[in-house]
Parts: sequence; C-alpha cells; structure tokens
Amino acid sequence: MDGVTIDLAEARRRFLDLPIYAALGTVRPDGTPQVNPMWFSYDGEHIRFTHLRTRAKFRNLQANAGMALSLLDPEDPFSYLEVRGRLVDVVDDPTGAFYVELQNRYGNPSTVPPPDAADRVILLMSVDRLLGQ
Amino acid sequence: MDGVTIDLAEARRRFLDLPIYAALGTVRPDGTPQVNPMWFSYDGEHIRFTHLRTRAKFRNLQANAGMALSLLDPEDPFSYLEVRGRLVDVVDDPTGAFYVELQNRYGNPSTVPPPDAADRVILLMSVDRLLGQ
Repeated sequence: MDGVTIDLAEARRRFLDLPIYAALGTVRPDGTPQVNPMWFSYDGEHIRFTHLRTRAKFRNLQANAGMALSLLDPEDPFSYLEVRGRLVDVVDDPTGAFYVELQNRYGNPSTVPPPDAADRVILLMSVDRLLGQ
Repeated sequence: MDGVTIDLAEARRRFLDLPIYAALGTVRPDGTPQVNPMWFSYDGEHIRFTHLRTRAKFRNLQANAGMALSLLDPEDPFSYLEVRGRLVDVVDDPTGAFYVELQNRYGNPSTVPPPDAADRVILLMSVDRLLGQ
C-alpha cells in the first residue's frame, strides 16, 4: 500500500485543499507512535490544526516535534498523500475562531465557539516532504 | 478530535471487522512518525497486514516495534477507534495468499497472486490498548 513517487505526491497536493479527515501521526514520550483523525486546512505554507493544550498529542509534540499526515483520496483509496513535517508554531485561539472555521470547512455550519475555546490553539505543521502513490 | 473513553473504544471494537482503510503509524529510525493507509483483518487476537520486506515500514518496525492504528467510522467521522500495540510476529506469505484474502475483503475479487508475492509477509500486531471516541 505504500510507495514513494514524488511526482505523484506533488500531483496529490490538491488533497490539501479538500476537507478530508486526515490521520495525524505523532510520537509519544515512550517512543511509540500515536495516530488520530484530525481536521486541517492548508494556508499555502503550513498545515493548520485546531487542538487543545490539554491533550496527549500536544504533550507528545513538546518532546518530539515530528508530524506525519496521511490523506486518502475519498474517491480512490489507492491514491494517497503523506506529508512529513514538524510542529513549527503554536498560536493561541482563545475565541475558538479557527475551530469554527474548520467546522464550517468540514460541512458543519456554525458560528458558535466550542465550550473549550479557552484552551484552543492552532498547530502549524511544516510541509517538509510529500510522498504518495 | 481525540478523546479517551475505554467503554466507547470497546464498543467500537466492531470496526475491526469492517474493511476500513486504516491509518498505520510507525516510528522511523530518526525518531519521526510515519503514517500509511493499510488494509487489515482481525483474527480475534491480532491485527494482520500484508506487507513487503523491502518497504520502509518494515525497516521501521525492526528498530521500533511500536504500532498505532486509527480507524474512522465510515458513517460517522466523529467516531473512531485507535489501537495501540506492537509487531509481535512476521509470517512469510510467499504465494501472496493473504494479500489475495485482503484484496477480496476490500471488495476487489481476485484469485491472482500479486507480482511481488515472493517478498510478501504478514505482519501480526498485538492489541494492547483501545482508545476512541
């Protein structure tokens, strides 16, 4: 199921514009992997996630900034993009505005901030390498 | 998007019986994460994958046996199962029979072995912990 073909990965960069439920890999403090489904958006430079300072993934990333994101083509499961990068910045989102932006991107229209807005942050992931098939 | 509720995770154990495209996390020799879409099946004890000895994931697992698998409910993306475990065995599959079994499970009827059958193996992953929401 995995392959490395840079030209194809570049062609699949368009996946970054789609509201796909992505699988984010991080590494836990004990060195084992963790994978979670995540909403994301891409601003042309970084991949952005809404997250909480209180979560395990956040703690993982303090110790090991490595991130890997897998995006499966919703119309062709043999076609996917893997993005490798690292956490490059954490931006406070105390009003939950970015959460609401992603919620709308993923087809859940709302203007109501999440109840946990006070702990909300935006994670910025670098795009260091694209792989896929 | 992530939460830890063991009872719910147990309820979502049924995802293991569905032909979901799973996201498998491993850790690369440089300590960064890798995530790939994978076919799998569950035999009641282990999660089984078809794989190739020649791939990066296989090398990753020789150095670090940790594995994490994320399964998203195809009908409700807010519902998911994360399985944490480790590589406990590698079984040769020189005829590609297990590849063909998975291919059929995922809706691609065929009896033809894959051209890379000689390098095919079955990875057996333990189910050490279930998480989800």
